[in-house]
Amino acid sequence: MSFSEYFPIFNRLTPTEQEELSRAAYKRTAPAGTVLHNGSDMCLGLLVIRSGQLRAYITSDEGREVTVYRLFDRDVCLLTASCVMNNIQFDITITAEKETEFWIIPPPVYKALTERSVVVANYTNQVMAAHFTEVMWLMEQIMWKSMDKRLAKFLLDECNLEGTSKLTITHEKIANHMGTAREVVTRMLRYFQTEGMVKLTRGGIEILDEDKLAELDT
Amino acid sequence: MSFSEYFPIFNRLTPTEQEELSRAAYKRTAPAGTVLHNGSDMCLGLLVIRSGQLRAYITSDEGREVTVYRLFDRDVCLLTASCVMNNIQFDITITAEKETEFWIIPPPVYKALTERSVVVANYTNQVMAAHFTEVMWLMEQIMWKSMDKRLAKFLLDECNLEGTSKLTITHEKIANHMGTAREVVTRMLRYFQTEGMVKLTRGGIEILDEDKLAELDT
Repeated sequence: MSFSEYFPIFNRLTPTEQEELSRAAYKRTAPAGTVLHNGSDMCLGLLVIRSGQLRAYITSDEGREVTVYRLFDRDVCLLTASCVMNNIQFDITITAEKETEFWIIPPPVYKALTERSVVVANYTNQVMAAHFTEVMWLMEQIMWKSMDKRLAKFLLDECNLEGTSKLTITHEKIANHMGTAREVVTRMLRYFQTEGMVKLTRGGIEILDEDKLAELDT
Repeated sequence: MSFSEYFPIFNRLTPTEQEELSRAAYKRTAPAGTVLHNGSDMCLGLLVIRSGQLRAYITSDEGREVTVYRLFDRDVCLLTASCVMNNIQFDITITAEKETEFWIIPPPVYKALTERSVVVANYTNQVMAAHFTEVMWLMEQIMWKSMDKRLAKFLLDECNLEGTSKLTITHEKIANHMGTAREVVTRMLRYFQTEGMVKLTRGGIEILDEDKLAELDT
């Protein structure tokens, strides 16, 4: 499969734009752990993901983290091209959570296209609106939902994502996703275990009662 | 002053687009307290503010609120036209905090323009990116900043906005801006009073030591 099949609006571009894009886009593979974007000093370009998993998160001065959103196959990563957008003025870190294969559209190419093509400009709008929605959703979670609901939802999402009910993940890592302290996660997991919803194992968590966890997250 | 002088990109539109917009945009005045947008069932259109003050906030099921951003003279309100944007899928309430005078660009007119004009599409992008940045900033505040810093910042912002050091505002209202409970605000204000930073009066708060408050917010 080629770039043209992965970039969602490719068929709606003019032949000249298509040629320009195909020539400029290049493919890369980032091993798990690679930092693709970090604050305002990096500007890789627009990423079109072929396969893999990216994580976008914010960090406090003290090193606490919270996951803002994740990107998967066929998603487009806009914020690695934030230098192209004047009003995006916040720091976010984007790393490959699994080995990720993607095409890069370099910032100047993307910028020129956005300024000329109403199709590209509106597509950028759509992607940004989707991210905006995810961030608003997350804020509502943080503001109004209690930690037990958020943790239940996190565990269920992870099981879904990994295709297993036996998660290999540390409490520290969960805390970093949720923007809380490890102790808070451990305490809540122990409570979940007492309630028979999970079983804590060495280096992992086994989900025993998915329905009961799902009930929490309502 | 007319609509064309207030809409930031008016001069960059084609003569046909300018004529279309000028014909379609109409002026309204909303008294303080008017609800201009409420979840997904309202879609007034793009608002171009002549004068006044709007407040955008989210609400929990239990009625708790948190202010997401405010809009002032010459600002453009995008989310009152959220029905035009496919991927904006969250509920936000927008009310007039002071009497506000504005022009309305009806949703179909704005939608047609966005689909045709690369200038309008990119302008929408810029406004959305600015809101996105404000929301990310707010999330960082909520995640990492303690309540004393947030309250100090809120008080200083209010003084700035109202042009006075004697605020007429209830603890309940402050709690609604900050997404916390009234008791938390009252407790913190009493602490500020003990420290000589504010004086609590009947129905209001007087700022006594702006520098000390500003020091908190660093």
